[in-house]
Amino acid sequence: MSDEFDVVVVGAGPAGENVADRAVRGGLTAAIVESNLAGGECAYWACVPSKALLRPVELAAEVSRVPGLTVGPIDTAAVLARRDETVSHFDDGGQVEWIGSVPAEFVRGHGRLDGPKRVVVTAKDGSVRTLTARRAVVLATGSDAAVPPIPGLAEASPWTSHEVTAAKSVPARLAVLGGGVVACEMAQAMHGLGARETTVLARGGLLGRMEPFAAELVAESFAEAGITVRTGVQVTRVERPAPGGPVTVHLSEGPPVEADELLVATGRRPATGDLGLETVGLEAGRTVEVDDSMRATGVSGDWLYAVGDTNGRALLTHMGKYQARVCGDVIAARAKGEADDLPGLRDVADAYGAPQVVFTDPQVCSVGRTEAQARADGFDVRVVEYDLGRVTGAYLQGDGWRGRAKAVVDERRRVLLGVTFAGPAVGEMLHSATIAVVAEVPLDRLWHAVPSFPTVSEIWLRLLEAYGL
Amino acid sequence: MSDEFDVVVVGAGPAGENVADRAVRGGLTAAIVESNLAGGECAYWACVPSKALLRPVELAAEVSRVPGLTVGPIDTAAVLARRDETVSHFDDGGQVEWIGSVPAEFVRGHGRLDGPKRVVVTAKDGSVRTLTARRAVVLATGSDAAVPPIPGLAEASPWTSHEVTAAKSVPARLAVLGGGVVACEMAQAMHGLGARETTVLARGGLLGRMEPFAAELVAESFAEAGITVRTGVQVTRVERPAPGGPVTVHLSEGPPVEADELLVATGRRPATGDLGLETVGLEAGRTVEVDDSMRATGVSGDWLYAVGDTNGRALLTHMGKYQARVCGDVIAARAKGEADDLPGLRDVADAYGAPQVVFTDPQVCSVGRTEAQARADGFDVRVVEYDLGRVTGAYLQGDGWRGRAKAVVDERRRVLLGVTFAGPAVGEMLHSATIAVVAEVPLDRLWHAVPSFPTVSEIWLRLLEAYGL
Repeated sequence: MSDEFDVVVVGAGPAGENVADRAVRGGLTAAIVESNLAGGECAYWACVPSKALLRPVELAAEVSRVPGLTVGPIDTAAVLARRDETVSHFDDGGQVEWIGSVPAEFVRGHGRLDGPKRVVVTAKDGSVRTLTARRAVVLATGSDAAVPPIPGLAEASPWTSHEVTAAKSVPARLAVLGGGVVACEMAQAMHGLGARETTVLARGGLLGRMEPFAAELVAESFAEAGITVRTGVQVTRVERPAPGGPVTVHLSEGPPVEADELLVATGRRPATGDLGLETVGLEAGRTVEVDDSMRATGVSGDWLYAVGDTNGRALLTHMGKYQARVCGDVIAARAKGEADDLPGLRDVADAYGAPQVVFTDPQVCSVGRTEAQARADGFDVRVVEYDLGRVTGAYLQGDGWRGRAKAVVDERRRVLLGVTFAGPAVGEMLHSATIAVVAEVPLDRLWHAVPSFPTVSEIWLRLLEAYGL
Repeated sequence: MSDEFDVVVVGAGPAGENVADRAVRGGLTAAIVESNLAGGECAYWACVPSKALLRPVELAAEVSRVPGLTVGPIDTAAVLARRDETVSHFDDGGQVEWIGSVPAEFVRGHGRLDGPKRVVVTAKDGSVRTLTARRAVVLATGSDAAVPPIPGLAEASPWTSHEVTAAKSVPARLAVLGGGVVACEMAQAMHGLGARETTVLARGGLLGRMEPFAAELVAESFAEAGITVRTGVQVTRVERPAPGGPVTVHLSEGPPVEADELLVATGRRPATGDLGLETVGLEAGRTVEVDDSMRATGVSGDWLYAVGDTNGRALLTHMGKYQARVCGDVIAARAKGEADDLPGLRDVADAYGAPQVVFTDPQVCSVGRTEAQARADGFDVRVVEYDLGRVTGAYLQGDGWRGRAKAVVDERRRVLLGVTFAGPAVGEMLHSATIAVVAEVPLDRLWHAVPSFPTVSEIWLRLLEAYGL
């Protein structure tokens, strides 16, 4: 078995897999190193299981808005069984097989840089194998949940995204530390699946990186569902006297919260702490800075690349995969001495602002810049907003359908800088905005892209009319 | 009350209303003539009530695919009551008020051309009022269901889209004549709302203007739901011995079909039979041919325009409204002696191929040209297809989610000529394709418009990969 490959990828999540796939298509050989399950965080403990948990909750809410339809109580066991199926029962056989079909060599073990172009892999049994990269090493080790240094928190064995998405049962009382996407999605999933008391403790507010109206709509929905949201509070101390017993969360103000499980969803940190970064002159535990071809800027010799959460550009599976396509293609182009500056060989999407869907009810989705970001970046900004519930297509989705849309326009060029939609099941509308933003389609051209009646997408017409077209 | 206006619009459907609105915003005065309800076909007997009837049926189907959720039997009375609400109980007071707020004058009665720039309106009480247009008369009278000359058919008092969307109860046995959008949507709605035997009699096949795979998916779904589809049969004779009693439909082959109601959905004809077209040199009962500014080509003097179904370009509410915006704006520009050839003053969208959503389960939506149309039009065509059910986002929507996507590429320019999606609830995905087609976004740019994971919209990535990007 050769230990020399054109490309050695560390991390077999979606980003790492895509680098290898594209590099091999480009005529190179590749190995992928993974200490955990091939397929990565997304497939087992993030996007996939979280959506499997949210789907019945979201759909039940949709049904509740349609006169003439009634939905029975959610069978949580059936939902958890379906979740298990979506994560392949934590068996990565299918993924390993896929890697083999690329073809790329799958190397199971903990990969660590050992100087330029060298990766030392330590298997579970302690055996060590050294892989040498002729062309490039690509770091794609993703990120871990960050657990803040709150007294008693680590000792209380809190859940992170890992444990909540893999939950074998739903706790009766759940406290959630954080207000971002994971916090909101999992609070709603657990509450919808049977948690009696769900309390979100968000120091700032909900969904702080989104347009403020989106957070307001989600907060309204949470209030109606009976999910408690406490904002502006800090956790000062956590107690869990008996392992597996109740947890008490003490706060900077107001009464403490008692729960059966505590979910920490306060952010991520790059999984680069034990990656040997220091052997090539980089700092362990930090993101690996890259240029738009995904090449690490802190290392000379054109051999080190980083994609996905590891480079910190956008902590989103689809952006990691996108970066991976760029990366695999550019490594292949450079290996062959071909032009390496073609349009497909640069990450241009991240600079616009990554698209993202929050799968709560209402869903929130956005691409590009928020108004605040656009103003901070110095654009000549004009904003248009519209009540999404007033669109006929939305009214026809159900009674009491609420939503809102906002577009951020660059007045100088008359193109969209950002779009946010919030409303039930609006997630699939996002890609229209992503195309408009990334292709910089002028508003005067968007005017001729006629939304079909009666879809919710008619919001596009309303926004353009509100703009003055 | 003045009888002279800058613009006289005949027909207060969505197209006519939009013409008046845009013309008035452009500084002109306008009157709108309507013999039936202000708001038009769409608001009372087409898009709106049909979607109100379909929504619970579609949603119940979605629920049935999600483990852990169960939906009760549909309460048809509640659905019909909600339908009545969506059509404002056939009261057009709100629409009349809106017209007044434009402000435009609403004139109730039957409008008829009486030579150039003159419209004679006959009210229900027989009183007659003559309106004179200083600038333009706009015909926006829409279309009627065409009832084919089959022996016994007219005498059997068949339902058309009017009666079925306004149904006060669901017939136990429904026969549907036709295989197009109305036929498919209403067969599924009535069947889902309680018809025991639903039989679609389609001389050609289902959805003949769409990509063939879409019809196949709908046919599969119909078969599973128990809706009978008989294609390749012609209706030779219809019998209904007792008014309101059973109808017997005799066919060119096979046994006759007996039903409690017969829906005729075999196409539309322009409502121009009694519009006085002959007084201005045009032929009654035909579509009014227009140029891209919606000006009638068969009449001189720049005063006659036609929008929506009346001009026959695309029998779709949203395209009629789009044409109306062009028309109202161009009339205002010409009245003021301004440039009348700016980008917003031409219908450019219809030439690409109008977007359309069929609200069946699975939904079918398309924009631009089908492969067959693109080839017939002489493009250098390449086609990519992908199994939509294999997209992770689709799999997460439910078990047994089936769908398909197809993109038609102009190889010379590397832009999309057409896109079709078929699958449950894919309708909101259409606008991404509409923007891509109408803005002629190059494939190499679409590559950087990253679909969010895990949405069904990830199909965009799969299609571009299948193309070879």
